Order: sequence, then C-alpha cells, then structure tokens
Amino acid sequence: MSADLNDPDLRDRAVAAARGQAAFDVLLTGGQLVDVITGEIRPADIGLVGPLVASVHDRGARDDARVTDDLCGGFVTPGLIDAHMHIESSMTTPRRYAETVVPQGTTGVVWDPHEVANVAGLDGVRWALDASRDLPLEVMTLAPSCVPSAPGLERAGARFDPADMASMLKMRDICGVAEVMDMRGVLERSARMRGIVDAGLASAKLVCGHARGLAGADLQAFAAAGIGSDHELTDGEDFLGKLRAGFTIELRGSHDYVLPEVVAALKTLPRLPSTVTICTDDVFPDDLVARGGMSDVLRRLVGHGMPPIDAVQCATLNAAHRLGREDLGRIAPGRRANIAVFRDMERFEAVRVYASGHEVARDGQLVADIPAPVARSAPSSMHLEPFVPEDFTLRAEGPSVQVTTVAKPRFTEWSRKTLQVVGGKVVLGNGMIQIAVMHRHGQAPATPSLGILDGWGRWTGAVATTVSHDSHNLVVFGRAPEDMVAAANALITCGGGMAVARAGRVTACLPLPVFGLLSDASAADTAECFRKLKAAAEEVADWAPPLRTFKALVGASLACNPGPHVTDLGIADGLTGEFRPLFA
Amino acid sequence: MSADLNDPDLRDRAVAAARGQAAFDVLLTGGQLVDVITGEIRPADIGLVGPLVASVHDRGARDDARVTDDLCGGFVTPGLIDAHMHIESSMTTPRRYAETVVPQGTTGVVWDPHEVANVAGLDGVRWALDASRDLPLEVMTLAPSCVPSAPGLERAGARFDPADMASMLKMRDICGVAEVMDMRGVLERSARMRGIVDAGLASAKLVCGHARGLAGADLQAFAAAGIGSDHELTDGEDFLGKLRAGFTIELRGSHDYVLPEVVAALKTLPRLPSTVTICTDDVFPDDLVARGGMSDVLRRLVGHGMPPIDAVQCATLNAAHRLGREDLGRIAPGRRANIAVFRDMERFEAVRVYASGHEVARDGQLVADIPAPVARSAPSSMHLEPFVPEDFTLRAEGPSVQVTTVAKPRFTEWSRKTLQVVGGKVVLGNGMIQIAVMHRHGQAPATPSLGILDGWGRWTGAVATTVSHDSHNLVVFGRAPEDMVAAANALITCGGGMAVARAGRVTACLPLPVFGLLSDASAADTAECFRKLKAAAEEVADWAPPLRTFKALVGASLACNPGPHVTDLGIADGLTGEFRPLFA
Repeated sequence: MSADLNDPDLRDRAVAAARGQAAFDVLLTGGQLVDVITGEIRPADIGLVGPLVASVHDRGARDDARVTDDLCGGFVTPGLIDAHMHIESSMTTPRRYAETVVPQGTTGVVWDPHEVANVAGLDGVRWALDASRDLPLEVMTLAPSCVPSAPGLERAGARFDPADMASMLKMRDICGVAEVMDMRGVLERSARMRGIVDAGLASAKLVCGHARGLAGADLQAFAAAGIGSDHELTDGEDFLGKLRAGFTIELRGSHDYVLPEVVAALKTLPRLPSTVTICTDDVFPDDLVARGGMSDVLRRLVGHGMPPIDAVQCATLNAAHRLGREDLGRIAPGRRANIAVFRDMERFEAVRVYASGHEVARDGQLVADIPAPVARSAPSSMHLEPFVPEDFTLRAEGPSVQVTTVAKPRFTEWSRKTLQVVGGKVVLGNGMIQIAVMHRHGQAPATPSLGILDGWGRWTGAVATTVSHDSHNLVVFGRAPEDMVAAANALITCGGGMAVARAGRVTACLPLPVFGLLSDASAADTAECFRKLKAAAEEVADWAPPLRTFKALVGASLACNPGPHVTDLGIADGLTGEFRPLFA
Repeated sequence: MSADLNDPDLRDRAVAAARGQAAFDVLLTGGQLVDVITGEIRPADIGLVGPLVASVHDRGARDDARVTDDLCGGFVTPGLIDAHMHIESSMTTPRRYAETVVPQGTTGVVWDPHEVANVAGLDGVRWALDASRDLPLEVMTLAPSCVPSAPGLERAGARFDPADMASMLKMRDICGVAEVMDMRGVLERSARMRGIVDAGLASAKLVCGHARGLAGADLQAFAAAGIGSDHELTDGEDFLGKLRAGFTIELRGSHDYVLPEVVAALKTLPRLPSTVTICTDDVFPDDLVARGGMSDVLRRLVGHGMPPIDAVQCATLNAAHRLGREDLGRIAPGRRANIAVFRDMERFEAVRVYASGHEVARDGQLVADIPAPVARSAPSSMHLEPFVPEDFTLRAEGPSVQVTTVAKPRFTEWSRKTLQVVGGKVVLGNGMIQIAVMHRHGQAPATPSLGILDGWGRWTGAVATTVSHDSHNLVVFGRAPEDMVAAANALITCGGGMAVARAGRVTACLPLPVFGLLSDASAADTAECFRKLKAAAEEVADWAPPLRTFKALVGASLACNPGPHVTDLGIADGLTGEFRPLFA
C-alpha cells in the first residue's frame, strides 16, 4: 500500500535533503510537534521531500526549501485516521466526503461500504474502490461482511457468500473484512459467517467486529473466532471488558453519551492502551459540515477530560498499529507526510493539512484538486414503476378488522388492534401511520408490503426514503395514500433519496441518485438540502424524542434488530425470524 | 505466518470451549495475568484450545479441561520475544539454543544469521531456516544485509548483492532485512546498500538497522532511507533521539552499562513508547546458560528501576507491534497461546512455559521434544591444509627491520616500530604478539597473512579461532610458531572452533564444526567447554581489561571498524580503506 514510498530515487532525494546536501521541497517551521510516540510536545521544524517526511529537526536549523510555511506555533500532528466509518451516512460520494473532512485534518478513513454493497453488491464495492482513488484522503476500504444483514427476512440488492468475500479480499485495495455484525452467526458457527470469517483470517487482512452487548463467555468466544475489533460500546465496563479481551477499540463519536464513561474508565488504567483507536461510524451530512467528523470527536473527547495528546495518539499512531501501516500515524523521517496543524488542542481547528507531502487544505478550505466523478457511474437503483393511491390503500371487509401493528418506534413491539372499516377502507387510530416497503432492487414482485406503526404521533403528510437500513428498499410513511404516492413517486423520478409530501404535493426532496444513498453535489449543498428536508418532515409529523425522531425513519425496516419490522416481504421479527400477517 | 491459527475447525473448537459448550484442552488456574494491553495485573484463569487462547475469565469460573495446571499465584505473561539477536554468539545450533532459552520464558527470537551467512552464504541462510523449524521457539529469521561487512578489505565466504537480498526476501520464512550495518553505504547511497534497502522496502517486510553513533542530520537521513530500527545505543540522549526519529528501539542487554541511562531517560517521558522493544543481540554460551538470555535482560532492567510491567510490555506487545504479528505478544482469546509464568517480576524465573498451547518447559527444564539435527548438514568450512612452523615465522634481513604494527587491542591504531632480526627471524618486542589470518572459505591463496599486534601483554602460548568477526577466517595469535601451528591445526582437524596451545601442545579446544561457528552439543556442554577454553587462554596470556580481554580476540580482524586490522588480505584500515605492508 506504500509503493509510492519505495522509489529509490525518492529515497535518494530524501536522504540528500535530510543531510543538507539538497533543499527540502517543503519546510514547515515554527510549529509545535505533537510527538505521539514519546508523548512530548516540542518545538520542531519538518522538512518534506515528495510524499515523505525527510527530517524533523531543531527550529531554525534549516532554511533551504522550495516552499517554506510558518505554522505560527500551531500544533503539528499526524493526519487523523478514522478507524471505522460508513461514508454513506453522510450521503455524499467519496470525493465530496474528502472535500469536507480533509480540511478538518483527516487524511485517512477506514470505510465499510455496507450500504452501497446492500444495494449494488460487488459492482457497488468496485464503484467504492474507483470512487476513492486519487483523493487527498486515503480511503482504506473493507469488504462488507453482512450483505444482506437479515437474510430471509427481506430482499436486499445483493447477497455475499464466503466465496464473494474471498474474491473481494483478493483485491489489493480491499483492506479486510468489515464489521462482522451477525454475532449469532459467528458464535453459532453458521456456514455463512464461519466461511466469511475464515476467508478473512486466511487473507491475513483485518477482520473487524461489531460486538453489541457481548460480554462474558460470548465476548471471549467472539474474539476466539478471530474477530479483532469493536466499536459498539455501551458503557465504561463494556469498554474495559473488550480492551482486556484484546479487541482493538474503535471509540466512536456517534454515541456521545458513552464517551464520558469511556474517558473515566481510561483514567482508571495505569496506561493508555495502544489498542484504542477513534472513529466516527455514522455522521449525517449537516453534522459533518457544521460540526465536523473526527475533529469533532476529538473535541468532545477532550471536553470530557481526555488528555489531548492521548486523543491524538489514539487517532493516529494507534490506528496505524491496527492497520499495520508503518508509514502512517507518526511524524518522522521516512514516513508518509500526512500532517495536520491545529490552532489549539481543544477545538481542533485545522489551519493546515498535508497529504503525502502536498498542502491539501489551508484555514479550513480545500486547496487540492478533487478528481471528476468516476467513469464507472452508478447504475440506476430504482427498479420501480410509479405508484397510485390504491397501492397504499388498506382495504378490508367492514365493520371492523383485527390488525397486527408495530408498537413503538425504534424499540419495536408486536401488538394487535381492532380498527374500524369504512367503505371498505381501514381507518387508522390516533398515533397510527401506515408504512409501505417496496423492493427496489429488481426482483419481482415489487408490490408494496404494508404495515401499521403505532405510537408515531399525529401525521399530516408523508415521508419517503430509499435510505432504509440495511436493504435500503423504498419505504414510505404516512396516513393519506395521496401523500404517500407523491413522496414515493418523487424518489422514483429522481433516482432515490428522501422526500416529504403534504396535501398531495411534494414539499421537500433530497435527491440521492447514486444508489439511492449518495449525492455527488457538494457536501454543503447536500447538508442544506437535508436540513430543509428535515424541516419539512417536522411540518408533517410531531416528533417526540427520544423514540420519535427523524432517525427512526431510516431504521424502521432494520430487520436484523429484535422486534417486529416491516420489510418488503412482510412483518418480520429480527430475533425470532417469524412473520405475522397484517390481517389476522 | 499464522496459518496454523486459521483452521476453521480449530476456531469451532475454541468458540465452543469459550462458550462453555466444550472443555478446554488446557486450563491455567490461579495465576496473576500481566495484562500488557491495559497495564493491569489481575487474577484470571486462561483456557487453551490447540495453539489458541480460547478464553481469559474470572478465577474459578470454569473447571472443565483435559489438563488443569495450578499456577500458584505465578505471574502470567506472553512468551518473551527477543527482538534482535545472533544465535551464533551463543555458539549453539538453533535446536540447542531453543533448548536453553525456552525454559527461561522466551518463545520467539528475531535472528540475524549474519555470521553463518558470512561463512556459507545462501546455503547458510537456507540451513538457518531448516535448522529453525519445528522448535518450541519461533525463530523469525532475517536476511543478512552486509555480507561481507568490509568488502575489498577481506575475503569472506560469501557476497550478497541486491539480487541475493531480493531472492532471500521472496522466501516466505524470511521476515525482512537484518540490521543494516553499512551506515555510510546507506547515507552515501552506494549502489549495493541502496539496492539492498530498496529490495527490503519493496518486499514490505522489516528493514532493520544499526545506527551506531548516528545523530542529528545523519540520523534523520538514516531513517529517511527507510531503516526502521536500531539497537546500537550509547547513552540516554542517543536513545531519546532515536525514539523521536521514529526508530523502533531494540534495547539490548549485551551492553549493560547503557541500561541505567536508558531507564532514566524513559522516566523523563510522559508515557512508555510502543516502539521500545528488548533484545539480547549477543550472548556467549556460558552467560546464556548461567545467567540467561531475555530473562536476564529483564532482570537487569528491573534492577535498574524499570517498572516490571513496562519491561514485559516491551518484550512482548511492543515486539508484536514491530513484527506486525497480531497473534503474538498478548494473552487474549483468539491469539497464540505463547505464555510464560514467572515466580516473581524481579528475578524472572520461569516456572512454566507454553508455546502454541503446549507446555514446553516446567521449573526451568524443557519438557518438549527437540527435533533431531537437520538433514541438510552444514558443509565443512575449513578449506585449509595443515600448517608448519615456517608458515608463521617472520623472516627479514638483519640486523633490524622497520615494521608496521597494530597498536592497542580493540580500538586499534597504526604504528611503526624497529625490531631486531636474529638469524633471519624478526624478534618481537615486549607486549607484542603475532597474528596470522588465513582465508578458510576456499579461495586461493590461503597463505597466512601476518601482522604484529602491540600492547597485548606477555604471552606464553597461542590461541586460534574461526570465530573472528565478520568473515570468520582462521585467526591465530601467539609468539612461538610451534604453538600457533598446534592451535591452528587442531581447528583444521575438528572443523573449526577455538583452541589454545602451549609448549607446542594443545591445552584446550572448543570444536565448533558447524560452519566453524556452532556446536550441536548441548548448550551446557558447549558452555563448559567454552569456560575451560577461556581458562586455558588465561594461562597463556595476561589479560588486562577493558582493552585486553578474551573478547578482543574475536574482534581483532573486524575490518569494518576504524583503525588497522589484519585480514586475510593484509593490514587494512576500516575507515580509510588503505592497506599498509608489514615491512616498509
């Protein structure tokens, strides 16, 4: 992965420059080096040659360079490495994602393209690799391990078996097996997960994990199976237990409430383990633009009391250890010149960012070129014909009917209700909305699978989305079929995304034409469009956090979770695997 | 390198045992786990399945196992890893070396077979790989980088060019490029060293270093060239400078006087760097048996004030990071069950040692089987005919003659003296002895190269050795040709080694028939024989440390060092490369 650093002519130039026999390409002066190896912060100048750091020396010891940049006392750290994330959560293409996070000081991300793969399979993974090339951000792509995540309960766009995993792991640019979420499959040695983990071990690449709620014997067993990492932390004890079990921890920012406990738990240890890394996991586009990715996680960790240099070490050197990348995560001669310069170590505002020796961002603005969209354009993923109101109309024989409902958003429960039938149409009770899930990946039938959600408050419109974990079928929520049709058809027209409709007309639409998940518009535009969409959604539904939140929409069909979920195949329970009919 | 851990059936068994659905193969109870990840020492039981750790759990939580071993409160650490060493220094074959250090708690060594390669070239390296298989010790063999170490100044048994290095690096069992000693060649980009380092970088394997006395710009340049490690520490500042330059430090026990300064320097850092490892480098057989290898280094480091758990982390987890071996250096489920149990953390006496799940040593005694000597027997390396006194007689025209002498043992200096000639024979002055160096690797001529060493005290006999760094030609020291002949011919007869003669008769002989460097006798026997040889040497020479020591003999021809050294080609200066004639 470091072929570009192994050119003997480059090494000749670096050695000559380090010895003072030639000028540096770039000389960074006046900075305070954050030494993640020794834990020191010390004044130092840094000479770069091509993609390499050639020399780290006393301030002012050298002044011969093509370009000299005075860092004005800024804190110089290795470029931040996001140890586990899904670009899809930010709804932007990799080039647009890079455009956004590189100016924040991130120079490397470990990407699990789980959502793209669930929609587009191996083609999607190849697209992910192509779309990640030649960026100022090094995207280390993993092979999704759980496609689909709820086999038998839904139809996704693809299905990966062990042979598919082995073929992906043969690709040079695939760094390993992405978070293994099917914990039961691993622990109970299902043929599929056994084969997928086995392919990962045989490849000698990373085998990453997802150990939600695992403790005691099952946690030991998950590690014994060969899983090497986890980011699903629930509290401080969970964190310590997983550290002691040898897992590399990808400490994630997406669940802020866990961070104070983790920071407190770290303080109980005699030393900072080298197996703690930092990641974002999932960041919505508006948060990514307004608050940031990794830099925001560091800011919050430090705010919770983590020593800044510890946070930086976790986000750089420790990640490099995990990735087996000697060229990354440290600022030292002979290593890759991925460097971030922060104004301070509290807010982590990047004033300079260098990637492989090139200045790529200055004062929060990208100064590197971003390549054009990849030649391999994503195929359309909306294999659906326009809908009509009848498709979303619940019909039954009057005067009343017994229905199966899904009670409570997010942590769903089975329930049964008796509903009135007027003129052959079921009348929803208060707090009830309809959900319709349509398979959009080309298998027949694609007829709507209908369900009733209870406890969702009062709705006056509809929301449709093709971002619906993990199979990302087209899901529509609402009460009036006319609104549902308007929102659904808007997405068929624009190639997927999110839409809100009221009184039969679309009031907001976020087009995500790349797999129905991503937009190639600038992240700022996508973020603005997403903000407007959420505002429009506020207009048609009354949200009552923590359960009734916008986030509940994208998880309403997450059939791998316990409890009832409506999928394109019916109403299924992720724990028991049972289906129950709507009318019973 | 961990293929044996990637067997899905093995993982099935480990997962089942961890979950309590099957018994462990081995259960270690009542130990105190030294957790090198978190820095904690805590009571824990450990269940093993095949070569794996399957579970680390609370004391007494499980009792189902084929074999249960009560560790009686012993300190349980990962097996020690010697990060840089030369088995040849202990004059034993790998199987005999393993027999000695495994009961001391060492389960892995990183071997640079530099001496074997200087004698036997690629055949020697292949022999080293064969001789290291199927041992209870994992020998991670590197490809010697400087064969010969003083090209042009002497004739060794082989010459490795970049193509040879590339071919060795293609071997699966070769872990990288061994310590690059030709620092000038690297810094001045000699075609040979440039090509050898380039081959190492291209292989993506380790590129190890030897940065004796490098500091400032040259140290930065050495790292910029792609060299990743160093063990040639001179003091605390040197240590810190190399840490800050990003080198992995192989902290070595062979130079005890440096250790207190290094320990003191470590205390000035806010944290223990993950880039500090520990090694032995060179240990003579008597010390290896009486004091130990890695365990003795840990003992001394702790004695100098290093926290025991820090020393253990450096010798285990940090080494695994450097080697990129996720299976080594930690005791956790899914990792290789290489485990040492020490009675305490001061003297580091191992009471149990497990390698890949098997008990291999108990109470200091090996309990594992050691394989028979390798089929590929080492070819004879003594390509010499017996000598006669005339070969070692210095002849000149009387009454006196001007000679070039090598003044001072070890840190040698050029000198000139006028000596008497009686009966056509040169008469040596007080404190002078003769040195004769004979090429033993099959090139012609093999006629003795004669020199005069001054300041070596009063000698009454001769010492001969085929252990003579780095080309290991036959070297004889003495005054009377009859004694020199007796010692030299004894080694030709026994296939190489060390011999002492007095009054024309051999008084002690240590046969090292394997390449003239190693014995396949038990390490205890070799150590005893070596002790007797040193005692006999004490009889024929008066040693006055620090300069006049037995050790000075094996370095007297080390032509890569600055100052005059007698080689098979004449009297050469390692710094300037000049030769000077004996008679001038």
